[in-house]
Amino acid sequence: MKIILVGYGAMGQRVAALSKERGYKIEAVMVPEGEETPYLTVHSFKEFPEADVVIDFSHPNLTLEMLETEEMTLPLIIATTGEKEKIIEKAKRKAEKQPVFFSPNMSYGVHVMTKLVALATELLDDYDIELLEKHHNQKVDAPSGTLNLLLDTIKEVPNRRDAKAVYNRHEKLEKRKENQIGVSSVRAGTIVGEHDVFFAALDEEITISHRAQSKDIFANGALQVAPKLLDKEPGFYTFDNL
Amino acid sequence: MKIILVGYGAMGQRVAALSKERGYKIEAVMVPEGEETPYLTVHSFKEFPEADVVIDFSHPNLTLEMLETEEMTLPLIIATTGEKEKIIEKAKRKAEKQPVFFSPNMSYGVHVMTKLVALATELLDDYDIELLEKHHNQKVDAPSGTLNLLLDTIKEVPNRRDAKAVYNRHEKLEKRKENQIGVSSVRAGTIVGEHDVFFAALDEEITISHRAQSKDIFANGALQVAPKLLDKEPGFYTFDNL
Amino acid sequence: MKIILVGYGAMGQRVAALSKERGYKIEAVMVPEGEETPYLTVHSFKEFPEADVVIDFSHPNLTLEMLETEEMTLPLIIATTGEKEKIIEKAKRKAEKQPVFFSPNMSYGVHVMTKLVALATELLDDYDIELLEKHHNQKVDAPSGTLNLLLDTIKEVPNRRDAKAVYNRHEKLEKRKENQIGVSSVRAGTIVGEHDVFFAALDEEITISHRAQSKDIFANGALQVAPKLLDKEPGFYTFDNL
Amino acid sequence: MKIILVGYGAMGQRVAALSKERGYKIEAVMVPEGEETPYLTVHSFKEFPEADVVIDFSHPNLTLEMLETEEMTLPLIIATTGEKEKIIEKAKRKAEKQPVFFSPNMSYGVHVMTKLVALATELLDDYDIELLEKHHNQKVDAPSGTLNLLLDTIKEVPNRRDAKAVYNRHEKLEKRKENQIGVSSVRAGTIVGEHDVFFAALDEEITISHRAQSKDIFANGALQVAPKLLDKEPGFYTFDNL
Repeated sequence: MKIILVGYGAMGQRVAALSKERGYKIEAVMVPEGEETPYLTVHSFKEFPEADVVIDFSHPNLTLEMLETEEMTLPLIIATTGEKEKIIEKAKRKAEKQPVFFSPNMSYGVHVMTKLVALATELLDDYDIELLEKHHNQKVDAPSGTLNLLLDTIKEVPNRRDAKAVYNRHEKLEKRKENQIGVSSVRAGTIVGEHDVFFAALDEEITISHRAQSKDIFANGALQVAPKLLDKEPGFYTFDNL
Repeated sequence: MKIILVGYGAMGQRVAALSKERGYKIEAVMVPEGEETPYLTVHSFKEFPEADVVIDFSHPNLTLEMLETEEMTLPLIIATTGEKEKIIEKAKRKAEKQPVFFSPNMSYGVHVMTKLVALATELLDDYDIELLEKHHNQKVDAPSGTLNLLLDTIKEVPNRRDAKAVYNRHEKLEKRKENQIGVSSVRAGTIVGEHDVFFAALDEEITISHRAQSKDIFANGALQVAPKLLDKEPGFYTFDNL
Repeated sequence: MKIILVGYGAMGQRVAALSKERGYKIEAVMVPEGEETPYLTVHSFKEFPEADVVIDFSHPNLTLEMLETEEMTLPLIIATTGEKEKIIEKAKRKAEKQPVFFSPNMSYGVHVMTKLVALATELLDDYDIELLEKHHNQKVDAPSGTLNLLLDTIKEVPNRRDAKAVYNRHEKLEKRKENQIGVSSVRAGTIVGEHDVFFAALDEEITISHRAQSKDIFANGALQVAPKLLDKEPGFYTFDNL
Repeated sequence: MKIILVGYGAMGQRVAALSKERGYKIEAVMVPEGEETPYLTVHSFKEFPEADVVIDFSHPNLTLEMLETEEMTLPLIIATTGEKEKIIEKAKRKAEKQPVFFSPNMSYGVHVMTKLVALATELLDDYDIELLEKHHNQKVDAPSGTLNLLLDTIKEVPNRRDAKAVYNRHEKLEKRKENQIGVSSVRAGTIVGEHDVFFAALDEEITISHRAQSKDIFANGALQVAPKLLDKEPGFYTFDNL
């Protein structure tokens, strides 16, 4: 499989390294003017070598530019974060002529976790729900983006529409309210990423957990989507309909 | 709510105690000749006081007798374990005239866990699956009935039909085979019951866990079903269609 | 063993119930004027029947009164919470003439956990430490008293003297500082009490966890201490020197 | 710091890579005749360039040869597995003239875990103990070497001398015996290594867990020992007296 990579940040570099291990070839890397890469480096979506698929772990600006470029007719895998609504809108238009895959989280495991959490939330109507994530000590934001994705997943279930995240229980001296969802963030060592969703009621607990060992799960997620996308009809694809 | 209890073993006694806490009334307890209970004790399914519902945590013999007794026209909740096929067959016939609820596991949480495990197994096609349960040090059987229920749930998913449980890896000096499902049983202290289903693949793990704090979850499960069953049409009910 | 119980709140009642199971006898219960109990009820530390040991799960006022009463010469087990310093001071004076046991936490398991956490903190000099506790949804305070005990245990280790508990990382956009100890509190269902202490550094994590299944661990803790205290010399005892 | 590496297998290669990240220099690699490395490669312990320390992740044969070579007078860090008794004996003799460090497990975290497990075993006299380890699906042996190390640690505590490991509880239909220690091995995905020691008694559980994110913990363990060993007096060092 011949790949055009868009963006060459941490994730782009991992895609390149893991492509090599899988026997795929990086034909070119598209980066903004001024940046260079160890591969054939291009600065325009209008000129690039022949390839099978595009994998984009870049920046919304670059992604949106790509989605507006007519010459870019290859199957596209978009793993850029940020400007989600705009990207989806343009990606859907582009998808009329070619297969376009988009996921707000490129890890298939995290995608499956959202499905499990949605089902559990529907079935465990009157259980208390609490969320916990753990990441390394260099992470500046809390909670994590994946935790927010899980929280959104829960709030989309009808009877949890009014759920309220609570980030701090220290010295409140109040009982938990029914529609609260406690959110806890642990930061320590080099933990790559763990997410737990607890459901608890009278005398029982159900927990759904996801743990990543390496950020490679995102790069590998894109590389697993790629061969499946090649022979697809034009259309907008996600993990749900791939 | 007025309840007729069938059987007065450990679970029957908990149903009685928890009924009191919920303000329900045990009108009579049906036990075999020779047994006595602190309630109005009867020994026949043909004679018992007026009531709203029957809860049966007894023995397959007694349950099958009940299902064959025409005079027994109340809504029935059957939580007896053993002789599952026979009980379901007769329960379905009985259900033509009255609502009959049956579940191989009366804990709603365990029921939900089977749904989550089924969905995860379908979606996580090429993940390794392993099972772990923990129970108190007085339990004589291993693995637990609930673990076997989870194992059956997994094997009903098409691409896991040939899955094989492995109970011992000690001194085998072999790599795990793809269709294996490792099963581990921990026995210690007074642990009421914990079940973990692990799904693991390249650099990620998803775990679904259930933990019981008390055996009351089974008694409470029956007591939660009862009021919902009262105004149901005749029919065979499980947690899926209640 | 013949026991005088001081206080008849939730814990006192469990001590009474569990004493019966163990074949011990509650000779009398000492409660303030106006309260009654199903046992021989007394309202003064100067008049009570013959017994082997006193177990006190009451209130600091009552405990301090007991420690000042000369007539009270039995071995004493003090499990009252609050006014710790005052109680210890008076208990030590009393201990010159009779064996007196005191612990800020009557669960032997929690006591052992503090020992393990102290050792781990000494040895894991440059690891990040984070604390997590989970309790039922009716608990009004956060974090739990046991978590604060663990935090104090950590801060007594020389190189952690300047450790600072952090209770909320939400929307701070800052990296974890080295001397921070994150504290998270989960509230859900009927969880009796879980405490986790995480130590994490480059590529590894060590966790020490304690989980209680029932509040009986405190009552049982006192009942396990009792027979050991009977034949002890006068002195001030804790779990460390019993 | 200038390092002589002995052996250039998987671990040796990681030591080399991580040395570079830390700004240390690999002066030479000692491997058997016939092997080559990207560094100055030597095949004799009698001829090698000037350096500060030796790190040996090789094979007992090579390690024993090194320990018998008079010309080898540098501080030695021995991380070879196998032939433990012989290596310790010769290492102690060598240690009369130079500092020699040896550990059966080069991860400092695992070392600390053994200390915690030893303390917990002493204090939790009558608790049931169970062990669980999880590793990737390519591992051929079960249980892991680290689990056996933990088991040995437990059995060295006087009242556990007669403890018996139990590897399979399937279809035994027996209650757990008091001196049993259940051992469970999970194999799935790419799990690097997790070890849990459970202690459980009436209504409470204490768990001590270690989780490795990467095999680098062993290479980094050696690299953390190295600078501390440089200015030590001759002697036999372990994590306990370093």
